[in-house]
Amino acid sequence: MKALVYHGPGAKAWEDVPDPVVVDDTDAIVRVDTVTICGTDLHILKGDTPEVAGGRILGHEAIGTVVDVGAGVKTVTPGDRVLVSCISACGRCQFCRDGHPGQCTGGGGWILGHLIDGTQAEYVRVPFADTSTYSFPAGCTDEEILMLADILPTAYEVGVLNGRVGPGDTVAVVGVGPIGLAAITAASLYTPGHVIAIDLADARLKAAEKFGADRTVNSGRDDAAAFIQDVTGGQGADVAIEAVGVPDSFELCTRLVRPGGRVANIGVHGKPATLHLESLWIRNITVTTGLVDTYSTPTLLRLVAAHKIDAARFATHHFKLSEMEDAYETFAHPADTGAIKVVLAR
Amino acid sequence: MKALVYHGPGAKAWEDVPDPVVVDDTDAIVRVDTVTICGTDLHILKGDTPEVAGGRILGHEAIGTVVDVGAGVKTVTPGDRVLVSCISACGRCQFCRDGHPGQCTGGGGWILGHLIDGTQAEYVRVPFADTSTYSFPAGCTDEEILMLADILPTAYEVGVLNGRVGPGDTVAVVGVGPIGLAAITAASLYTPGHVIAIDLADARLKAAEKFGADRTVNSGRDDAAAFIQDVTGGQGADVAIEAVGVPDSFELCTRLVRPGGRVANIGVHGKPATLHLESLWIRNITVTTGLVDTYSTPTLLRLVAAHKIDAARFATHHFKLSEMEDAYETFAHPADTGAIKVVLAR
Amino acid sequence: MKALVYHGPGAKAWEDVPDPVVVDDTDAIVRVDTVTICGTDLHILKGDTPEVAGGRILGHEAIGTVVDVGAGVKTVTPGDRVLVSCISACGRCQFCRDGHPGQCTGGGGWILGHLIDGTQAEYVRVPFADTSTYSFPAGCTDEEILMLADILPTAYEVGVLNGRVGPGDTVAVVGVGPIGLAAITAASLYTPGHVIAIDLADARLKAAEKFGADRTVNSGRDDAAAFIQDVTGGQGADVAIEAVGVPDSFELCTRLVRPGGRVANIGVHGKPATLHLESLWIRNITVTTGLVDTYSTPTLLRLVAAHKIDAARFATHHFKLSEMEDAYETFAHPADTGAIKVVLAR
Amino acid sequence: MKALVYHGPGAKAWEDVPDPVVVDDTDAIVRVDTVTICGTDLHILKGDTPEVAGGRILGHEAIGTVVDVGAGVKTVTPGDRVLVSCISACGRCQFCRDGHPGQCTGGGGWILGHLIDGTQAEYVRVPFADTSTYSFPAGCTDEEILMLADILPTAYEVGVLNGRVGPGDTVAVVGVGPIGLAAITAASLYTPGHVIAIDLADARLKAAEKFGADRTVNSGRDDAAAFIQDVTGGQGADVAIEAVGVPDSFELCTRLVRPGGRVANIGVHGKPATLHLESLWIRNITVTTGLVDTYSTPTLLRLVAAHKIDAARFATHHFKLSEMEDAYETFAHPADTGAIKVVLAR
Repeated sequence: MKALVYHGPGAKAWEDVPDPVVVDDTDAIVRVDTVTICGTDLHILKGDTPEVAGGRILGHEAIGTVVDVGAGVKTVTPGDRVLVSCISACGRCQFCRDGHPGQCTGGGGWILGHLIDGTQAEYVRVPFADTSTYSFPAGCTDEEILMLADILPTAYEVGVLNGRVGPGDTVAVVGVGPIGLAAITAASLYTPGHVIAIDLADARLKAAEKFGADRTVNSGRDDAAAFIQDVTGGQGADVAIEAVGVPDSFELCTRLVRPGGRVANIGVHGKPATLHLESLWIRNITVTTGLVDTYSTPTLLRLVAAHKIDAARFATHHFKLSEMEDAYETFAHPADTGAIKVVLAR
Repeated sequence: MKALVYHGPGAKAWEDVPDPVVVDDTDAIVRVDTVTICGTDLHILKGDTPEVAGGRILGHEAIGTVVDVGAGVKTVTPGDRVLVSCISACGRCQFCRDGHPGQCTGGGGWILGHLIDGTQAEYVRVPFADTSTYSFPAGCTDEEILMLADILPTAYEVGVLNGRVGPGDTVAVVGVGPIGLAAITAASLYTPGHVIAIDLADARLKAAEKFGADRTVNSGRDDAAAFIQDVTGGQGADVAIEAVGVPDSFELCTRLVRPGGRVANIGVHGKPATLHLESLWIRNITVTTGLVDTYSTPTLLRLVAAHKIDAARFATHHFKLSEMEDAYETFAHPADTGAIKVVLAR
Repeated sequence: MKALVYHGPGAKAWEDVPDPVVVDDTDAIVRVDTVTICGTDLHILKGDTPEVAGGRILGHEAIGTVVDVGAGVKTVTPGDRVLVSCISACGRCQFCRDGHPGQCTGGGGWILGHLIDGTQAEYVRVPFADTSTYSFPAGCTDEEILMLADILPTAYEVGVLNGRVGPGDTVAVVGVGPIGLAAITAASLYTPGHVIAIDLADARLKAAEKFGADRTVNSGRDDAAAFIQDVTGGQGADVAIEAVGVPDSFELCTRLVRPGGRVANIGVHGKPATLHLESLWIRNITVTTGLVDTYSTPTLLRLVAAHKIDAARFATHHFKLSEMEDAYETFAHPADTGAIKVVLAR
Repeated sequence: MKALVYHGPGAKAWEDVPDPVVVDDTDAIVRVDTVTICGTDLHILKGDTPEVAGGRILGHEAIGTVVDVGAGVKTVTPGDRVLVSCISACGRCQFCRDGHPGQCTGGGGWILGHLIDGTQAEYVRVPFADTSTYSFPAGCTDEEILMLADILPTAYEVGVLNGRVGPGDTVAVVGVGPIGLAAITAASLYTPGHVIAIDLADARLKAAEKFGADRTVNSGRDDAAAFIQDVTGGQGADVAIEAVGVPDSFELCTRLVRPGGRVANIGVHGKPATLHLESLWIRNITVTTGLVDTYSTPTLLRLVAAHKIDAARFATHHFKLSEMEDAYETFAHPADTGAIKVVLAR
């Protein structure tokens, strides 16, 4: 088959590789029907994730059709169309049983396109198939369900639920690339009073408005903290969601929140940040971090099926699977292309 | 009357001052029967709290007898014996109505011995008397109830409740001076599996054992993180409580907790700390800060009355009110004196 | 002044009474600008609430202008336009301090138009004015804010928050008179997957659709439990909200919910219901009851100000204050008039 | 092998049956080392549980040694000593993945000694072995861990956690047979202010005192509601735990709790109860029911290992496995024998 293979920092190719086969009895082999690219894949290509070995097939998000299963697979059968989640769950370890497969100690967690071959391929081996794939409701398109492989549960769990967004809250989202837009989408489920998008790029702020932000601040030009003081009558935001992954944006979040406020970090960080405890110790702040667990995937599936989340609008560009390298180009240059998520179909 | 007056960094005296009188109609004048000294008072004396003006009477913890009340006081009457809390609550602002008077915007919060004259005196004016004092159950001694003015609600709310200590948890307490010992006491209410005290002083670790720690680590000699990995089968602590207020001890806390763990900061910090988001972003960590709100004071009063908290054991040294300066000496040098809390009585 | 005076079961009149004056120093006298009638007022007139004495002025919801205040009132001044809440809060008792003034033991709770004279009058005395009235944002109309005096916080707190409605949930609302419509409105804040209105009257079900129900069942004609099994793939509703107040509708709710589901009772009951523990004991059901506490009023004010709740649409009929008796007629016969809430203005 | 076989209401025998074998690839065959009898087994024998077929081996609690496993079992191997839980978890259905295997729709739930053969035998087939058994810490005895098969997680989850017992609470336990004593034990983990045991038998009340109740009421002689009003200053209990399973005791619980209080039902009921909504609607009451899910078993294992729960004291009588019928006699007549739990060992 063909697959997108990582060959060390900066190097990748859509090339021939052997077809995957069932290795463990809980595996499924899935034909990839629809797949996307994640910002994390770009990080891997930059060499930020040294645990990814050369020769690895990338990708951790897909919709596909089951073609084979191991003897221990109980609830998934060939012919089933499934969502392949970015998180694999062994289903047996304590973290999995407590609803936290992102921290799985039984061989799961984030493994696809990371520690084992991933979904940017014609076929993929999916371990722990019973607890790592989801069947999905009739009447939904592949491309909307595909957004539930990673970006929407990540934004919902790590941003909105960790940040305890509630009705009437003022929510600041710092960084409105794909994951920030997903955070705006997910925050809207709780009817916040205001969603304020903060970014350095006007084009992204424009997109944020379309996704539901009612205020925007270009923090390169304007003082975001002062803006939020103004909107909130001098209080500060109830929740600030970090969706960039650099120290500056994290530190900005800690300045934006009111006493009792929450900072929910979604960004993938490569460097430490400064936590200004000399002013924060007295302010009843909560800071959370997290990798998605996907415990919310069934809820999000219900919401997409009920047309309460417009997931399709994330998909700005469409390609054939064989155009994988073009799709990477488009996704890697959003300032030029306006890409939010690219969708590749068989 | 006599009172302990602050005269700028390093200077204080037990001296004659005018008696306090009712200023606002919600004030009570309370004769101080029993009073203590807080670590925060020592910080003020070092000049760490520049908002405290020269001439200020210090102290924010007392048991006393009401001698006069303003016309607007409804539930407190002369003759009542009351606990004077470190936090004053206007009772009207949104923070007070939401149970967070520590953040009161109506003139309360931490004001006694800080923004207005305090309790280390023969009499004290207590604003918002209805919502800032507590009557207390018969059969309790002044000195045990006195520990509910600050140290126990602070440790309980900001350490134990913010850290969501639960049955069976492994709880690390970093710093076991008075507030750390209070955190051990408060954590015990939830029957943790292990309470591990961490400090640089063996004498304090010995005290921690008496207060209920089942393991101790001298982090000057031993690797606390390795110790906790060992106790928890390689997982890490469920909760780490910071009770010092320096960057090192905070950063240690973030290394001690397991994926999904909580770091509850109680320490009063003067400098920023480093938050290692490059490793923490993926670990589902929660970090909390806070000033006590005293919403738990009624609960703690019930627990002391039911003999479920041994609050009296914090009181290691006893003085007369007129021996205030000696009491400060004793409390300021715990390594020599073994002082945890000093109690001064009329 | 003129006021609507209750003269025992079945008897009321809009008649001359003395103007109210400040009695306690925490009172405000409020000129009533806009007022409404509650289903509870009709219960009182039927004699269902024997603690209401003859001679009592009815009404517990109003928007008005402060004309006088007692010496102990701090934050409300003559000229302020305020929302007068159905719940008065002494602000000092433990229930008030814990956010539950509906259970106030300090003289508050539901007292207006119940134990003291109420708001269906030209002027009203409002006890505990600082903690029982709310100023409100510019740009909102009286009639939308008026819905925050009782119906919306009741539906939100006692129905939606007690029932823990969450994104994607299937919510059944049994009884879609005014309070049931308010429950649909409040549930929508959490983006449920489905809101199913259940009633005996097709006209009310039609209104429910306008307020956001996506399914309706006339339980006089159809089997509501079977309908919900069908919608939920055989599971049952996540939440059932009782908004009638009779045993049948409560018992229906307990049949509608899935294992782990919640039954939130809002209805005012006059008779006991049967709780089928022989089948429910094993199903992890939660049943809640409650009187509104109004802790959510500030949140709801923010949501109305941000145009996230369309409160105005509850107001179907408008009268002058002097047309109070006509307004009662209209409100008492919704099947004929289509009334949801009637609004009377100065 | 020998096993205790149910032969319809009133009939049972310790008799020869075929040895169990692996049927599904997720099964384990466990040699029973230690086993106990549950009150539910007595209910089955009375014929209260008609879904139990004649010929069924009873029992759903055991400690044993794995002797064989199916090909799909990953984490359990022959030779392992394991706790066999009363609840089997398929690990794949939504209820299991949400932490509620008591409601498993994938073939688990309460099946042992109910829908399939159980543990009162020399060997038992345990389905879904990976997610339905627990290895346990060295240094614990079989008989203390055996109490974690059913009685302690049931009391903890369905009584204490559902009832939200917290520090300082007044907790009333109605019915202090084995499950009520377990509720007292589990409630103590949260340091309630008072635990009040209520029963009709003085002998059981005496046992309750030994297990940690600080007050007792014989409700056949004394007015339990008046007693609790007295203890709580006229408020009522924070939590009432029903541990009998008859309408009277449930209804008593609803009279014991304060406004805002919780009634947590553990009892297995055969008849409906009356819910006095005409007085309860206004009191902010929460009523919960539930079957144990065993999500707390790992926590309880840690607590027993840390000697924070004295589980061994439930075991009042000891037998050999072959004395099963005698053990039933002893357990069925606690008024004569004083039995709490009987323990049978190989």
